[in-house]
Amino acid sequence: MLVAAAVLLAFTGNVRAEDGYALWMRYAPLQPALAADYRTHLGEVVSPDQTPTQRAAREELVRGLSGLLGRAPRMNTAAIAAPAVVLGTPQSSVLIAPLRKEIEALGDEGYLLRHAHIDGHTVLLVAAPQDIGVLYGVFHLLRLLQTGASLDALEVRESPRLRLRLLNHWDNLDGYVERGYAGRSLWDWQTLPEWRDPRYTDYARANASLGINGTVLNNVNASAQSLAPDYLAKAAALADIFRPYGIRVYLSARFSAPIELGGLTTADPLDPAVQRWWRDKADEIYTRIPDFGGFLVKANSEGQPGPQDYGRSHADGANLLAAALAPHGGVVMWRAFVYAHDVPADRATQAYTEFVGLDGAFLPNVIVQVKNGPIDFQPREPFHPLFGAMPRTPLMMEVQITKEYLGFATHLVYLGPLYEEALQSDTRVRGEGATVAQLLTGIAGVANIGNDRTWSGSHFDQANWYAFGRLAWNPRHPSRDIAADWAAMTFTPSPEVVQPIVEMMMDSREAAVNYMTPLGLHHLMARGHHYGPGPWVDGGPRADWTSVYYHRADRHGIGFDRTAHGSNAVGQYSPEVAAEYEDLARAPEPLLLWFHHVPWDHRMASGRPLWDELVGRYTQGVRQVQGMQATWAGLQGRVDAQRHVQVAAFLSLQRREAQWWRDASVAYFQSVSGRPLPAGETAPPHPLAWYEALQFPSAPGDGR
Amino acid sequence: MLVAAAVLLAFTGNVRAEDGYALWMRYAPLQPALAADYRTHLGEVVSPDQTPTQRAAREELVRGLSGLLGRAPRMNTAAIAAPAVVLGTPQSSVLIAPLRKEIEALGDEGYLLRHAHIDGHTVLLVAAPQDIGVLYGVFHLLRLLQTGASLDALEVRESPRLRLRLLNHWDNLDGYVERGYAGRSLWDWQTLPEWRDPRYTDYARANASLGINGTVLNNVNASAQSLAPDYLAKAAALADIFRPYGIRVYLSARFSAPIELGGLTTADPLDPAVQRWWRDKADEIYTRIPDFGGFLVKANSEGQPGPQDYGRSHADGANLLAAALAPHGGVVMWRAFVYAHDVPADRATQAYTEFVGLDGAFLPNVIVQVKNGPIDFQPREPFHPLFGAMPRTPLMMEVQITKEYLGFATHLVYLGPLYEEALQSDTRVRGEGATVAQLLTGIAGVANIGNDRTWSGSHFDQANWYAFGRLAWNPRHPSRDIAADWAAMTFTPSPEVVQPIVEMMMDSREAAVNYMTPLGLHHLMARGHHYGPGPWVDGGPRADWTSVYYHRADRHGIGFDRTAHGSNAVGQYSPEVAAEYEDLARAPEPLLLWFHHVPWDHRMASGRPLWDELVGRYTQGVRQVQGMQATWAGLQGRVDAQRHVQVAAFLSLQRREAQWWRDASVAYFQSVSGRPLPAGETAPPHPLAWYEALQFPSAPGDGR
Repeated sequence: MLVAAAVLLAFTGNVRAEDGYALWMRYAPLQPALAADYRTHLGEVVSPDQTPTQRAAREELVRGLSGLLGRAPRMNTAAIAAPAVVLGTPQSSVLIAPLRKEIEALGDEGYLLRHAHIDGHTVLLVAAPQDIGVLYGVFHLLRLLQTGASLDALEVRESPRLRLRLLNHWDNLDGYVERGYAGRSLWDWQTLPEWRDPRYTDYARANASLGINGTVLNNVNASAQSLAPDYLAKAAALADIFRPYGIRVYLSARFSAPIELGGLTTADPLDPAVQRWWRDKADEIYTRIPDFGGFLVKANSEGQPGPQDYGRSHADGANLLAAALAPHGGVVMWRAFVYAHDVPADRATQAYTEFVGLDGAFLPNVIVQVKNGPIDFQPREPFHPLFGAMPRTPLMMEVQITKEYLGFATHLVYLGPLYEEALQSDTRVRGEGATVAQLLTGIAGVANIGNDRTWSGSHFDQANWYAFGRLAWNPRHPSRDIAADWAAMTFTPSPEVVQPIVEMMMDSREAAVNYMTPLGLHHLMARGHHYGPGPWVDGGPRADWTSVYYHRADRHGIGFDRTAHGSNAVGQYSPEVAAEYEDLARAPEPLLLWFHHVPWDHRMASGRPLWDELVGRYTQGVRQVQGMQATWAGLQGRVDAQRHVQVAAFLSLQRREAQWWRDASVAYFQSVSGRPLPAGETAPPHPLAWYEALQFPSAPGDGR
Repeated sequence: MLVAAAVLLAFTGNVRAEDGYALWMRYAPLQPALAADYRTHLGEVVSPDQTPTQRAAREELVRGLSGLLGRAPRMNTAAIAAPAVVLGTPQSSVLIAPLRKEIEALGDEGYLLRHAHIDGHTVLLVAAPQDIGVLYGVFHLLRLLQTGASLDALEVRESPRLRLRLLNHWDNLDGYVERGYAGRSLWDWQTLPEWRDPRYTDYARANASLGINGTVLNNVNASAQSLAPDYLAKAAALADIFRPYGIRVYLSARFSAPIELGGLTTADPLDPAVQRWWRDKADEIYTRIPDFGGFLVKANSEGQPGPQDYGRSHADGANLLAAALAPHGGVVMWRAFVYAHDVPADRATQAYTEFVGLDGAFLPNVIVQVKNGPIDFQPREPFHPLFGAMPRTPLMMEVQITKEYLGFATHLVYLGPLYEEALQSDTRVRGEGATVAQLLTGIAGVANIGNDRTWSGSHFDQANWYAFGRLAWNPRHPSRDIAADWAAMTFTPSPEVVQPIVEMMMDSREAAVNYMTPLGLHHLMARGHHYGPGPWVDGGPRADWTSVYYHRADRHGIGFDRTAHGSNAVGQYSPEVAAEYEDLARAPEPLLLWFHHVPWDHRMASGRPLWDELVGRYTQGVRQVQGMQATWAGLQGRVDAQRHVQVAAFLSLQRREAQWWRDASVAYFQSVSGRPLPAGETAPPHPLAWYEALQFPSAPGDGR
């Protein structure tokens, strides 16, 4: 019948449209034998349906089983008549109640999956202390089915390692997404609150499937308008839609809102009228959104207003908002991504310098949000030195899911390994084994989501949303395993498809590092929109907005000396880490030029001189993209045509741009080093001036 | 099986998604009895498949018949084995060849549908002189089936009345759509030319279904970049996709491009270097796009560069580009929407004043593009006085499909009657019966299309795209009949659904006139974004960008005196028309305040004084929206839930904003007239100052 339906529907345009909208929740029919086996365990669903979250869990399971197994399960709210899936909490299910003690040990968001015998039937329990845990457990179970896992001797106990798992949307109120490459903002402020687009619910489902439990709706370069009554009514409508899925709404707050909205003459955090304004605003927000999460703030950074405008500290500013939110249980996420107007010796040192002294000065509901690295979401950075340096302050790590510096939405770059590298970095602050992940209270990902049909601007960029969510739940989860789950759920569980896709994905980030910024180079992109190479970028308002500031290439060598003889950024790390980075012999080669200014003829691990190695890496990056193209071409016929042709088109675009990065970078660095190309390397097809002259005034995502 | 499929697919998210994407080409299954009857005539399709257009026609027919009749037809390329649909041209089909003489009389884009007897079978001929006519005929046949029309004694002969039937996209290269309310631009310049989104083909299908035969891809406020080689390669990719559907690509040209792209020091149309640059650019374009349509130009208007910057005339400027395009068969569409920097007595008179003297001065491949009315796409305007005033110059009419001044995408306003009113206006230039439509060479509609899933930002705004296309093909087609076709194709052919929807649609434009600008008032919207009422708008850079300039309300009366005693705009019309507009007694009441300044106590046709009539109209507009809400509520269960709930949400938003328009306008005009509200009229809930203080810095579509 499926076939018949497909034949018929193919012509009415309603055949399973593999346009990417369904994300990793496609619930496509499984192999008949496997489906039959699962059906013997899962013919019936016993679940409560009293609360919105209970209904969401029940409906997701029905949707998933119906699609995967080709048949809707029998539904039941209490009694068991056959092998069944039993959902519930000790409060919501008499069948689960006996397990109360064991279950409550899992914590508010945890869950367990396990077989049990009840009323003479073998059942599969999806049990949790709270409704939301049951929903998470349902998604876990569906993932097991989507990936073809065995249910025998199933014994799963899960709890999130991080309390706050948030998306940050850099969305403006006019629908423009800063650094967005997936269309317009998902939030249609013009039609809210009246129109509640079903897509908002699918957004919540996708996040809940990963355990993401919060979302900041608006850009950190915030408009005060987002705190005005009409926009709060719109945000409240979204909060109502997200609530059953365990997702709290947060807002970016503009520090000067008391002036712009309140008509005050100052936003001084120590001014009583300002303090009253924020208290009243918090009260107003919580009357509309009882579970409002709190504020995210970018202050005194890149022109944003902040407490330093009044001679106050970041702690004064953060505590102002924290005091207003505390009575309601809200938090302030205060970004450490700051740099002063007067350019310092090394921008990489600045956040640490400004914040480390404030450790202990923040109210308990303030969390300092620190980017993964000390500069700005580069293809590769060392971990941020503030991790481990503020023991008395809760910290969140901010990573970018949108690929501002990694080829936008058109380059296939799987960020799982980048996140994993940052999370597993050993700060050595308490000797061995104090990884960044262990020091975190939460994690925030700058979303790559827009109104594009694929959500993320490309099919493979969905994997970065997915990997972020999985790592937010469990930062120790290997990014390769996450890639395998994603590929199986997004395409098909067949290993002949999953395995090559995983290889492509795991190779892709290193490819981008190679064709953009190899060996620890960073910040070499074009100015403003950051589209394409710009190693020659110089001049302009700030030295630390140029490329030459960062690569420091000259006739003799290349790299930023951040050792004790240079900016001494290494001194911001723990002694053990500092000693390793300080020593040219011990510094990891992938970070070599981040920490050292190195002569062109320095001998590399490969035995080649640095200059040869650098050019070789650029060329290797292009070759890696060609390899991804070949792998993908080999999957034709095994991946649905609609997505195969789109990914192939994007890969050829990536190939063209990788070559452009390689040629422009080699042309530039050769003009500086004055050295001949290594044997076997082809010269760039155009002179350097040709690359320098390229203009892209309409490149997407530019800050406005 | 369909039911079974629906049940199954409902859970896999693949049930017929009534999200609006399919537009009026849903091809939903017909009533079984009707489908069975049609199948007896249409069991087989005999069509050639040698050219892309032939394949497009064949595939559309298969898609349509399969969906509507629930069964794919047998396909055949020549012989006839059963009652069949026979597609072809005298060149492509031996079965059609005998009709060559009769068919060629239909012209290049015409077609005929008729029964015939061939090889002992009754067949339905879809015959045309060219492949494109066959495709148009297929869409005509499918429309007959979708609306449940009888095929007995079918005899259709169709040819378009206008040669140029174009969409104008005001899309910027960064994806922003000026005055767009349907998301981002459909053109993803970043992924072109590699990625050819299937949506581009659906866009072409939708336009071909209406006979639209050209599209201007970029904003009239143009960037020179759109003429640069990389963007021409992207435009060429779109042209390749559109070509089989009879759609030619045009570009808006920035007059100063020779300076910005060519590095020249001038764009003077009489400068030989400038002339050479445009000739070379035209040659370059035609090597990439052999059937390139030509240029659309906005010059010396609202700050755009133009020939007057060099002391040359609009004719000099238009002829410069026309000379470059002429060898390739391209045209220049030169917009008459111009007004000088020094504000004149009456902006309504300005286009006429600047252009009428140029009649005869343009090269033959120049077409002057004139807006439907003398101001700017207002809810109601008289026809533009240039129509009929330039007998030696081909003219196009430009109308707006996007609703910049009619409630954006969130108000249900069917524009069919507005277009019909403009097209059927009698210019009386040759005595009776010289309608605007009869004087036109072509028509352009400013598109309301974006990447929103509904294409147009709402379900009912699709009807405006549809009505524009149908009227472009046949300007005499009654807009009510077009509404009925659209409703039947978009929702269901059942009369109990179609009839009330048509009533809503036909009432909707007058409703908007009433709650926004009744009795000939115009240009009363808020400044800049044009969102909501702003009758109080005054000051700023130009008097003719204010509301008070247009309504001229004072203690004694209201309206713009455009009679001989005033600006004498009436003098720009033919004597017969001028005499009617000039006479307060004869001027049509819907245009009264456009042409006359009228005392508040002037007795109206209703017998009420003007003040009472004005307030009554505002209130009536709100009541009309309430009526639309009631009608729509009555259709619950007869229209699919997905679209019913969205339209209902949009109508409640429209109701709220109509009330806002009414209250703000009444509050303002009462502050001017000083008169009491008529009996039975409720006072606005807020003082005037409250309405004046409202700010919407993020309203969509604002010019940037």
